[in-house]
Amino acid sequence: MSNLPNTPTTQTTFLSTEHLVEIVHRKTLQTCLAGVAARIESDFLRWAEFDKSPRVACHSPEGVIELMPIADASDFAFKYVNGHPKNTRWGLPTVMAFGVLADVATGIPRLLSELTISTAIRTAATSALVARVVARPQSKTMAMIGNGAQSEFQALAFRDMVGITHLRLFDTDPAATDKLEANLKGQGLAITRCANAMEAVHGADIVTTCTADKTNATILTPEMIAPGMHINAVGGDCPGKTELHRGVLEASRVFVEFEPQTRIEGDIQQMPAEFAVTEFWKVLSGVAAGRENSEQITVFDSVGFALEDYSVLVYMRDAALELGLGEQIELVPRIENPKNLFGLLSEPLASSQANVAIAPLRKVALG
Amino acid sequence: MSNLPNTPTTQTTFLSTEHLVEIVHRKTLQTCLAGVAARIESDFLRWAEFDKSPRVACHSPEGVIELMPIADASDFAFKYVNGHPKNTRWGLPTVMAFGVLADVATGIPRLLSELTISTAIRTAATSALVARVVARPQSKTMAMIGNGAQSEFQALAFRDMVGITHLRLFDTDPAATDKLEANLKGQGLAITRCANAMEAVHGADIVTTCTADKTNATILTPEMIAPGMHINAVGGDCPGKTELHRGVLEASRVFVEFEPQTRIEGDIQQMPAEFAVTEFWKVLSGVAAGRENSEQITVFDSVGFALEDYSVLVYMRDAALELGLGEQIELVPRIENPKNLFGLLSEPLASSQANVAIAPLRKVALG
Repeated sequence: MSNLPNTPTTQTTFLSTEHLVEIVHRKTLQTCLAGVAARIESDFLRWAEFDKSPRVACHSPEGVIELMPIADASDFAFKYVNGHPKNTRWGLPTVMAFGVLADVATGIPRLLSELTISTAIRTAATSALVARVVARPQSKTMAMIGNGAQSEFQALAFRDMVGITHLRLFDTDPAATDKLEANLKGQGLAITRCANAMEAVHGADIVTTCTADKTNATILTPEMIAPGMHINAVGGDCPGKTELHRGVLEASRVFVEFEPQTRIEGDIQQMPAEFAVTEFWKVLSGVAAGRENSEQITVFDSVGFALEDYSVLVYMRDAALELGLGEQIELVPRIENPKNLFGLLSEPLASSQANVAIAPLRKVALG
Repeated sequence: MSNLPNTPTTQTTFLSTEHLVEIVHRKTLQTCLAGVAARIESDFLRWAEFDKSPRVACHSPEGVIELMPIADASDFAFKYVNGHPKNTRWGLPTVMAFGVLADVATGIPRLLSELTISTAIRTAATSALVARVVARPQSKTMAMIGNGAQSEFQALAFRDMVGITHLRLFDTDPAATDKLEANLKGQGLAITRCANAMEAVHGADIVTTCTADKTNATILTPEMIAPGMHINAVGGDCPGKTELHRGVLEASRVFVEFEPQTRIEGDIQQMPAEFAVTEFWKVLSGVAAGRENSEQITVFDSVGFALEDYSVLVYMRDAALELGLGEQIELVPRIENPKNLFGLLSEPLASSQANVAIAPLRKVALG
């Protein structure tokens, strides 16, 4: 918006998955996690400035495809994301995403970016941000139940932002734990492999559940929970997919991102509408209390909110600009006379404009 | 969906505005208009197979940004489109669009395409398709009120699909008419420039209104309308933007694309909810009558429906495949082990995978 009169270009910056890998490599994952968390924190602190639309979901027998829009006064963002639990049959990720940042003032799409890696970063950054605020100070040990695609990001964010030094791991698939353990080698985290969820949770200050099955599971039951624990419940994130026994929720102070969405998608979908929850931005803003005492059990019922995607898109846009990364693509046309769209089909293309080999066209054939 | 087990790739084909220009150049605009119209016709004939979600709109003082999703059993499509009437101040188009086709079965985005040029093509193709069915046979003369970005596409589609040989042009901006006349030179259309809308409409078989002002205008009033006319009302397409006096609607048989959307966005927004309209797919399917006699006035209250975007995306996808056009981009990652997203950050990229210059990474720095 600010640079509008000077640069009336319609070019869009494209960040591919390779660009994202390059950004993370050059800035370090630690810096990206901390930077995205800082963006999310500052964006949550201006909660009221955002136009928070409901997400649009298209359900099919195999999965769901969603569009998640959000906007403030200057930027419109949306994320495309799917959820197809059986995709691993084809060697495909179950969740893939990409997103766009556009100028609210003109509608020009300014950034098209992968959001699969970025979503893992923003999810972990959000979880660690919440835990830093509501978990007990000096939490050192985290149980991780579910050691899949998100788990390394969670582990490193909690190490850096919360001070976790010890992980207790469990997954029904031992190969997933092998992979997590191998990926975390040399990262300064002590690791204990556990035979089951009950064992993993034993002695943990924080419990992260991040399982993939689309089912109403009870990964955590009340007898597993010790006073003062913080539960970071990441995997219960759509209708019919929960991880916590309702007794765990009943015994806890529960924090959510955006209440109307979490009522439908989060672990609290199994609770009555009057079950009390606290939106995390209110805790950050000082409007609501966080943890009330060291014995209280706290739960972050994470589902993933469009604002976090906006935050990571803005962070990656700035990082790409700083590092000189990204490709310029012609997603929408540059037109000298906006009333002459047809002229695009009959006039020679400026060579600077063409990113593909196209012979200059004098006149389009009209048969 | 059909080629799934054999090609578990996550690559996305990107069609830029230059690719679209190239497709139109190589196939001819005539072929594209006819081909897109044929696709729209066949897709309208399987109306019930589509999951027709409401569009999501984000309004701001300067304009609107919308996401328009639709899906059948195999393809999910959405369009991003803005509407910013004051964009011409910056030399920018008022309407820009792009869209995506994705596999419903896996969620993989298969096609990312410009939709600014494509929207002009599908809008004109839809208008001509409707007129071919409901205008009087042997219609030869069309009045065109509003000679902006859409007008050439409308003129050529009506020439090819309806048999229009004579245009009567008017625009409040004579430069727009100059441009339209120049662009249509040598296209086999006799052109008469008119001093006002009343004069343009005189003797016309079909009247196309395609004006840009976001206002409740009365481009056409009842005294301008002759028995048997077909009115192709393209410009009245969002709340607060209409072109027809309500008396014109009252005197006519009105056809719409998707009634719930047109009630909000079309010229019929000024009519009571019980005002009768006919969805065009019903006429195509033989479920409802089209024109009932040669004296009847017919109106196509065009607003633009997501299904038409789906149709043009599928057409352009097939055309790009046939012509070997488009770029492969990495919008979502290729991952050998879908549970090892983190591995993307620590393993070397396959050279075939990189479309930007990135040094192979052995290990991501983690600070």
